[in-house]
Amino acid sequence: MTTCPLPHEETERVLLGHGSGGRLMAELIDQVIARELGTRGPLEDAAVLTAADVGPGGDPVLGPGADLVLSTDGFVVTPRFFPGGDIGSLAVHGTVNDLAMRGARPIALALAFVVEEGLPVEELRLVTRSAAKAAQDVGVPVVTGDTKVVGRGAADGLYVTTTGLGVRLPGARPSAAAGRVGDVVLLSGPIGAHGTAILSAREGLGFEAEIASDSRPLHRLVAAMLDAGGEDVHVLRDPTRGGLASALNELAAASGVAVEVVEDDVPVPRAVAAACELLGLDPFHVANEGCLVAFVAPRSAPDVLAAMRARPEGAGARAVGRVVDGPAGRVTARTLIGSTRIVDMLIGEQLPRIC
Amino acid sequence: MTTCPLPHEETERVLLGHGSGGRLMAELIDQVIARELGTRGPLEDAAVLTAADVGPGGDPVLGPGADLVLSTDGFVVTPRFFPGGDIGSLAVHGTVNDLAMRGARPIALALAFVVEEGLPVEELRLVTRSAAKAAQDVGVPVVTGDTKVVGRGAADGLYVTTTGLGVRLPGARPSAAAGRVGDVVLLSGPIGAHGTAILSAREGLGFEAEIASDSRPLHRLVAAMLDAGGEDVHVLRDPTRGGLASALNELAAASGVAVEVVEDDVPVPRAVAAACELLGLDPFHVANEGCLVAFVAPRSAPDVLAAMRARPEGAGARAVGRVVDGPAGRVTARTLIGSTRIVDMLIGEQLPRIC
Repeated sequence: MTTCPLPHEETERVLLGHGSGGRLMAELIDQVIARELGTRGPLEDAAVLTAADVGPGGDPVLGPGADLVLSTDGFVVTPRFFPGGDIGSLAVHGTVNDLAMRGARPIALALAFVVEEGLPVEELRLVTRSAAKAAQDVGVPVVTGDTKVVGRGAADGLYVTTTGLGVRLPGARPSAAAGRVGDVVLLSGPIGAHGTAILSAREGLGFEAEIASDSRPLHRLVAAMLDAGGEDVHVLRDPTRGGLASALNELAAASGVAVEVVEDDVPVPRAVAAACELLGLDPFHVANEGCLVAFVAPRSAPDVLAAMRARPEGAGARAVGRVVDGPAGRVTARTLIGSTRIVDMLIGEQLPRIC
Repeated sequence: MTTCPLPHEETERVLLGHGSGGRLMAELIDQVIARELGTRGPLEDAAVLTAADVGPGGDPVLGPGADLVLSTDGFVVTPRFFPGGDIGSLAVHGTVNDLAMRGARPIALALAFVVEEGLPVEELRLVTRSAAKAAQDVGVPVVTGDTKVVGRGAADGLYVTTTGLGVRLPGARPSAAAGRVGDVVLLSGPIGAHGTAILSAREGLGFEAEIASDSRPLHRLVAAMLDAGGEDVHVLRDPTRGGLASALNELAAASGVAVEVVEDDVPVPRAVAAACELLGLDPFHVANEGCLVAFVAPRSAPDVLAAMRARPEGAGARAVGRVVDGPAGRVTARTLIGSTRIVDMLIGEQLPRIC
């Protein structure tokens, strides 16, 4: 408590852009949160716990090579109900997918609600029902939860934080830092649907009839990919906040490699492209909730791609680029006319409260 | 979407009292959340996952008798900094304690922030630092996290959801449903400090100099109790929201027994008693964050009590009552003058946003 103003600069404050999944957010996490927590290593959406982390509990707790994976994710999406899903199903899918990106099969979920006073009980019921149905479809039980209520105006209806516990599939070692020069970049399906669906629903833009969120669980797709490619599946990431561009930038930086994609090989649905053009958005920066990008060793890439295409959620899978020798973290796109552009991370905020 | 109003009754809405830890909250969880999720069994603050729940992952994931415990908890306390702690340390202690109440040693924490646009970055830094320090003191790493930013007015500064993963200590089987007639009711220390400290700090009542929150980790106390009493430690619970009265009511109901406490054996600090008298609060309903109540088989109760008293956080431990034969869920207190009163659960809201 001081009565004199700060001399030169304004007190730094959290901006909406700090939650974007882009560069501002990476800086906030790196310089404030990870620094204070003393955590190191590549930015992953889920943590792996080995036998050494778990420690003995009398007898060994974990069997040989059996690793646990833990992930947590807050959901503040608005509107809470949108074409293709709602905050309940999204919260389950998002967390299941974070586990899957570390090669884990989900075994338990925990749900924590922060509810604003005045929310219709029926809406809480519908969101819970949707989360329960999504969890049942995934095949993972919700084992525990928590509910807090805050006064009117102290939250925007309902926030959901979902935590997932998983067990790593045998032979699975995907990590953001494991990309190698020569890896093939595979994309499981078209991009941009979630972000444009949310924006359209929020602003009443009229694309709702054409664009639905791609929110869906990806753990079965990942299991099929690991079955086909094993440890040759080096990197898995679902490009959510910040879109494909931010995901590729993070992965390239974490692996110390460069990535080159062929822009026209990245599928963007016609309605998504139209919405993005109208709104001045780059589809590469728009959030997804039902696709993944993988870096796979070239010898296994054809088998992994075939395994992806054999599943409905990977039916549109294709190779979209390569991991190449170059400055660590550089992502470029070759365009139709043969030129090359830098694909940068989202800088600030494109679209707040997308998930 | 319907344009005609609901015919007879108002749409039911979530009230502040639904977050109180009392009867309204139990009803909301029972009739909406647990019902939709299809969960059953006694209300526990953490879930136990056995080898059967985890399933095989090639080889068995969990060693024989090694059970995992998962707990999640949202923290919305206001003010975020208060005598004896802050939202960061409270979030760590609260979750560590929920694990401990199932007999688990904590092995990993996950932190999820919902931040309101405009929060000073320095405040986020201080809260993170405090959580990091609390985790270090406990001896548990924060392994993963998430940060969401919502617009001004869409949250009250900062909410923290903490999830803890633990491993059950050998021989530990405490459960809310395991209380038996004849058990001794042990209380680890004085009650009422957390709730009165928060209220005093929030409202500027002037008790701040005298009352600090009892927020602290209880996992070492629990380890000592289990070491002394093993499976004779039937029930463990930290009486947070809703206070000792609500905790005893829940435990008595879950175990299908009655509980009788001796009112004057329950230690209430002088300053807490004064604050409660001034504010018209019953100390039995005031939240705690650093004490626990246990139901212990009579043959082990002296040893367990001695083990509690040998630790600083259990120095004030004492036997405060008995599990008795009677209507399931009935809790009574014998008073100084020999009369008996019913100790009911907190009904609605005593003090919102206490944790």
